[in-house]
Amino acid sequence: MRIDIITVVPDILKSPFEASIMKRSIEKGLVEVHLHNLRDYTTDNYKQVDDYQFGGGAGMVMMVEPIDKCISKLKSERFYDEVIYMTPDGETLNQGIANQLSLKGNLIILCGHYKGVDQRVRDHFITKEISVGDYVLSGGELGALILCDAVIRLIPGVLGNETSALTDSFQDDLLAPPIYTRPADYKGWKVPEVLTSGNFPKIEAWREEQAYQRTKERRPDLLDEND
Amino acid sequence: MRIDIITVVPDILKSPFEASIMKRSIEKGLVEVHLHNLRDYTTDNYKQVDDYQFGGGAGMVMMVEPIDKCISKLKSERFYDEVIYMTPDGETLNQGIANQLSLKGNLIILCGHYKGVDQRVRDHFITKEISVGDYVLSGGELGALILCDAVIRLIPGVLGNETSALTDSFQDDLLAPPIYTRPADYKGWKVPEVLTSGNFPKIEAWREEQAYQRTKERRPDLLDEND
Repeated sequence: MRIDIITVVPDILKSPFEASIMKRSIEKGLVEVHLHNLRDYTTDNYKQVDDYQFGGGAGMVMMVEPIDKCISKLKSERFYDEVIYMTPDGETLNQGIANQLSLKGNLIILCGHYKGVDQRVRDHFITKEISVGDYVLSGGELGALILCDAVIRLIPGVLGNETSALTDSFQDDLLAPPIYTRPADYKGWKVPEVLTSGNFPKIEAWREEQAYQRTKERRPDLLDEND
Repeated sequence: MRIDIITVVPDILKSPFEASIMKRSIEKGLVEVHLHNLRDYTTDNYKQVDDYQFGGGAGMVMMVEPIDKCISKLKSERFYDEVIYMTPDGETLNQGIANQLSLKGNLIILCGHYKGVDQRVRDHFITKEISVGDYVLSGGELGALILCDAVIRLIPGVLGNETSALTDSFQDDLLAPPIYTRPADYKGWKVPEVLTSGNFPKIEAWREEQAYQRTKERRPDLLDEND
């Protein structure tokens, strides 16, 4: 998979790709991530990427032209499955969308910043608008990181043990059950006995019941979706 | 505001705090962010922070002791309003939660990694569990960044123009209307005439109508909540 991220603040995006799972997936050659500074696609001396809103109002708007130049250049070099815009009014990211995107070959992710991008960018260049949640961020960069991480970890070979991703919360519409590790007794707080029983069918049954109970208490909406 | 982030991979978190709005809010003295490497709170030579799950299964579990040591040290130094654990089965972050947290003084954010933390950490140390959305990430670090950004930008003085945050999507349960900037005509794609009319009451009415229409099309659930 190849991911091209277009941003006005590439510096934000650096460290998360240089550590942990995203770093290792890049080193293993399972994914390529390319950061593009939108200012490199400007034509004026000030490297201007934003301008005032038509009609007035607070906040700057990212201009069409540099974005057009950058996306058009990338698209002239290879086929892209999706040109994604990170925006709070996009489709809300969930595990299903992450699963689908993990099967794609090439993705462009455009990060909005300031007040957002000129609507004409969304009308003419964007194929998919994604929100990471119902909250407002300073820009699309952190959303792009979330999307990359959610997608990249699903690519076969990225996680050491593939079952690790499959037993995560949401993959079966249930939250994960409680987990414990050593010591079995910490300051008098004990691990549930069943987990140290060695009775694996019983452990499995306990985990399923706990996952169901936790989902019922915390996220009954996930259970409703399966009815 | 002071935010203490506890993590096993502090490197992930660096660049987002060294750029853009989070950097400026730190430089202005409006927020302090301290990263704590959980390995500094281990007592063995291997700096072990995780161990196998009781009961078997893929994925490592973060141990209680280093987390206890780190949180207890911080709490001995000052009062914390919340000790937050980033987890996909926590309360889903929204603008209301971000607004509430932006009024707090000191926050601890614990990032899960691997399969998550020992349940006893959640039972005994955590006061608030937050999820940034219904998807699984490699760890809580990116979620912590999202939470910090969503909260920090709401602190008075962080954004240059305070009205900028108030007119964002979600603050009034409506998505933001389309925005445009120069040029008025780009390759034949024109800005809506009303926005260049100079008739501000008409512009305001158009924006309200567009925000309502967009919300109705994309997120009717936001409108239902107001009924």
